[in-house]
Amino acid sequence: MIGIFDSGIGGMTVARAVEQLLPDYSLVYFGDIARTPYGSKSAATITDYSLRNTEFLLQKGAEIIIIACNSASSVATEALRREFQVPIIEVITPAANKAITTTRSGRIGVIGTRATIRSGVYEQTICGQRPDFHVFSEACPLLVPLVEEGWTNKRETKMIIRRYLHPLKDKQIDTLVLGCTHYPLLAPLIQARAGRRATLVDSSVETAKYVRNLLAEQPLLVTREEEGTATHRYYVSDLTDSAQTVARKIFERPVELILI
Amino acid sequence: MIGIFDSGIGGMTVARAVEQLLPDYSLVYFGDIARTPYGSKSAATITDYSLRNTEFLLQKGAEIIIIACNSASSVATEALRREFQVPIIEVITPAANKAITTTRSGRIGVIGTRATIRSGVYEQTICGQRPDFHVFSEACPLLVPLVEEGWTNKRETKMIIRRYLHPLKDKQIDTLVLGCTHYPLLAPLIQARAGRRATLVDSSVETAKYVRNLLAEQPLLVTREEEGTATHRYYVSDLTDSAQTVARKIFERPVELILI
Repeated sequence: MIGIFDSGIGGMTVARAVEQLLPDYSLVYFGDIARTPYGSKSAATITDYSLRNTEFLLQKGAEIIIIACNSASSVATEALRREFQVPIIEVITPAANKAITTTRSGRIGVIGTRATIRSGVYEQTICGQRPDFHVFSEACPLLVPLVEEGWTNKRETKMIIRRYLHPLKDKQIDTLVLGCTHYPLLAPLIQARAGRRATLVDSSVETAKYVRNLLAEQPLLVTREEEGTATHRYYVSDLTDSAQTVARKIFERPVELILI
Repeated sequence: MIGIFDSGIGGMTVARAVEQLLPDYSLVYFGDIARTPYGSKSAATITDYSLRNTEFLLQKGAEIIIIACNSASSVATEALRREFQVPIIEVITPAANKAITTTRSGRIGVIGTRATIRSGVYEQTICGQRPDFHVFSEACPLLVPLVEEGWTNKRETKMIIRRYLHPLKDKQIDTLVLGCTHYPLLAPLIQARAGRRATLVDSSVETAKYVRNLLAEQPLLVTREEEGTATHRYYVSDLTDSAQTVARKIFERPVELILI
């Protein structure tokens, strides 16, 4: 069983990609809606929550953990790997690798929460492999609440995206990493503001592809179910109307959220 | 000692008003930044957090508790009064009473978080006393993140306020309750959009006045300190840069936030 956690509902963009790419694997998701959002909180607090979320998923039978949250991936991955024996997959490396193979100019933009951008993890991962590349990062803290409110096509959202992307305008980037699992829901608006020449990299999709490749190489890591018997359970620490609305938008179908 | 809690830093507008009106009383504040915001979470979760926050303040010596958060006041006051012996003061009644004495037309607007508006507590409190009055409520969930980001004078914030206040436009209200302790920081923008004829009621200031009157009537409720010896301690469950910035804006001086 594949375990996935996020601060709330944004990580469901990862879960959906996993469901589509790996239909024969059972999946257990935990969204920490009671403590959402993580991205504006401290590294110590995010790490504490991530440890508890992982424990919950292991109790439910997870054999591998995906941290479907860039903020938690940025600051808590090492602590989780020290604490737990199972493979811990984060969303940064797959997105960074995709950005490296996508860019032609070596000029890459990254947008994310304050926690993710402050950690500098995308710069470290990209420039660790390619010291000749340039990474330009911008924190976009209001985009998560805008997505959670369902304001994914409002004029105000477009203006806020324009304001956030403005410092990247003269950096001549050709690749822009959506370094937050909420941002795929804003992809059309971000693409419009980033310009046609910039290719967007979706950390959610790249992480699902990374897990698919990992399980192809190491098939014994996670139990594969009989065809048609895989289960998908979505647990949350709080149940709100807007969570259910956004979940339906992400999956394009109603999703049962189970309150723990 | 007066105990005050809030989901984060918005309740500091209440603490500041208490400091100014009651300078001879010690004050202990708890801001639950690690779990902020409360306003979009469920009543059960907000009540659970409020019980824990009150326990913390009592351990620190609080003799009276102010719930400096409209969301928690709306859904958790009864539970706190059942659980604890000390007086529990909420922010709804003082603001509702002020609105009743302010309006001439009997047409009152209320803005707040989703939890506050959904609870219907302002309508119940106002119309419970004046069944002939009309209360028009609008949830404004994005205003808390905008304040916490310090976007208190941005064009996007003005547009979002205009969108939220739009349904109140033809209701001919002459009084508008700021039913969230974050909103006093947006008062100039809200006043501009509400129109000159609408008088704003600030739940933070009204609550501080209410406590001042209570202590004048029942001076033994809370220990009064020797002149010049009152202490003011501000505890938080997480420490972030933006919390410190907003705290400085509210108090117009640096404030030491103590991480628990």
